[in-house]
Amino acid sequence: MEVVYTGKTKDVYRQEDGNFLLKFKDDATGTNGVFDPGSNTVGLTIEGAGRAGLRLTKFFFEVLQEHNIPTHYIDADIEKATMTVKPAVLFGDGLEVICRLRAVGSFLRRYGAYAQEGQPLDYFVEVTLKDDAREDPPITEDALDMLGILSKAEYQILKDLTRRITQVVEAELAKKGIELYDIKFEFGRVGPEQQIVLIDEISGGNMRAFKDGRHIQPLELEELMLA
Amino acid sequence: MEVVYTGKTKDVYRQEDGNFLLKFKDDATGTNGVFDPGSNTVGLTIEGAGRAGLRLTKFFFEVLQEHNIPTHYIDADIEKATMTVKPAVLFGDGLEVICRLRAVGSFLRRYGAYAQEGQPLDYFVEVTLKDDAREDPPITEDALDMLGILSKAEYQILKDLTRRITQVVEAELAKKGIELYDIKFEFGRVGPEQQIVLIDEISGGNMRAFKDGRHIQPLELEELMLA
Repeated sequence: MEVVYTGKTKDVYRQEDGNFLLKFKDDATGTNGVFDPGSNTVGLTIEGAGRAGLRLTKFFFEVLQEHNIPTHYIDADIEKATMTVKPAVLFGDGLEVICRLRAVGSFLRRYGAYAQEGQPLDYFVEVTLKDDAREDPPITEDALDMLGILSKAEYQILKDLTRRITQVVEAELAKKGIELYDIKFEFGRVGPEQQIVLIDEISGGNMRAFKDGRHIQPLELEELMLA
Repeated sequence: MEVVYTGKTKDVYRQEDGNFLLKFKDDATGTNGVFDPGSNTVGLTIEGAGRAGLRLTKFFFEVLQEHNIPTHYIDADIEKATMTVKPAVLFGDGLEVICRLRAVGSFLRRYGAYAQEGQPLDYFVEVTLKDDAREDPPITEDALDMLGILSKAEYQILKDLTRRITQVVEAELAKKGIELYDIKFEFGRVGPEQQIVLIDEISGGNMRAFKDGRHIQPLELEELMLA
C-alpha cells in the first residue's frame, strides 16, 4: 500500500480498492511529556495510545452513524490499530474546526479580556488552518470564502455538523459523568457529490474533558468511556 | 480639561461642553525606528508628525462628510494639533477594523499558504481586539456576538461602513497616483441612538500605501495628499 500522508499521530495509506487505511500511532501531541490537544508537536509517546484512540474513534463514529451524521468511517481493526475510511478531499491543506462549551485554552489566551476561565460558551465554533509553520492561524468565514477554501454555504454545513457532532459526543461523555469542555474535528469532501463529512478521528486527543473538576487525560478518557 | 485616555499616538480630553478633544502627538507606531501601522509599540517620534496626521485626518473626515458617512468629527485646529469630536462609546475595550485591498502584513503572515504577496483582495474586512497584552487577536463575527461586544446586525453595519470608507480613501489616494494596500479604522457608538460612526483618525499611520511600487511613509503620504 502507498503511504499518502505521515502525520503526528497517524499515517494514511491508499488501499488497492481506493479506500484509505489510517494507522494509529502511539504518539500524542503536547510539550515536554504533557498532553495538549491544541499543540502542534508530538510531546509524548504512550504504549497502547494508538489502539485506545482507535477504540474510542470506532465507538464515536458508530454512534454518529446511528444519528445519520455523515463520516468517512467504514470499519476498524483494533488488533492492527487501523481504520478503513472513504477517501476524502481536504479543504485546502486541511482545517481544524473547534467547538467550545467552556472558555479554556487558546480561546482564553485570545479573548481573556472578555471571558472568564471556564465560562460556558454556547457550542461556539471556530476554524483554524492546519499550518504548523504559521501556528495554525484562526480564520474567518469571509477569509475561507475569499481564499477559495470553503464557500459560505459549505461553512454553514460545517458549522451545523460540528455542533451536532459535539452534542452527540457531549451526551455520550455525560453518561459516564464526564464533562466536555472543547473538541476539535476535521472535515473533508467525499464522493462525486463532494458531500461534507467528518474525517480523521474522535479520541481523547481531540478534546478536553473533565470529571469531578479534574482534567481527564486521553488514555484515561478512553478507559472510562469504554469500561 | 480632564484627560480621558493617553494613547500611543494621541491623548483624549473631555471638554466642558461634553465633546472630546483629541491631541495628536508626534509619536508613531513601529519597531526600532521603522514605521509599521500594525505595530503595538511606539517605534519612532517624528517632528511635526502629529500635525501632519491631523491635517490628513481633517481632509478625509471632511470628504466623508460630503459622502454622508457618519464620523465623530466636529472640527480641527491644526495649530494646536487638536481635533474636536463627539463623545463615542467603544465596542468593548476597542476594536480595530482592517480593510485589505492587497495581501501584505499580518494577513500574509497568517494566510501565506493560500495567498501570494501583493495579491488583490476584494475589500476584505477583518476585526481584531485592541488588546496589547494579547497581541491584538483577530476575532470573528460569531465571537464578537457571543462575547457581547458587537451584535451580528452591528457587525454588518460596521463591515459595510468599512468598505464604503475604504473606497473613498482609495479614490482620494488614486487622484495622486497612490495605491492603497490596506487600512485600519476604529468605530464607536455615538448619541442616544448609539449610531455606529467612524472615530479616531485617518492618517498615514493607519494605512499602507504605495506609489510606483514604493512604500510611502506616513509623513510623505501626508505631503503628497495635501500638496
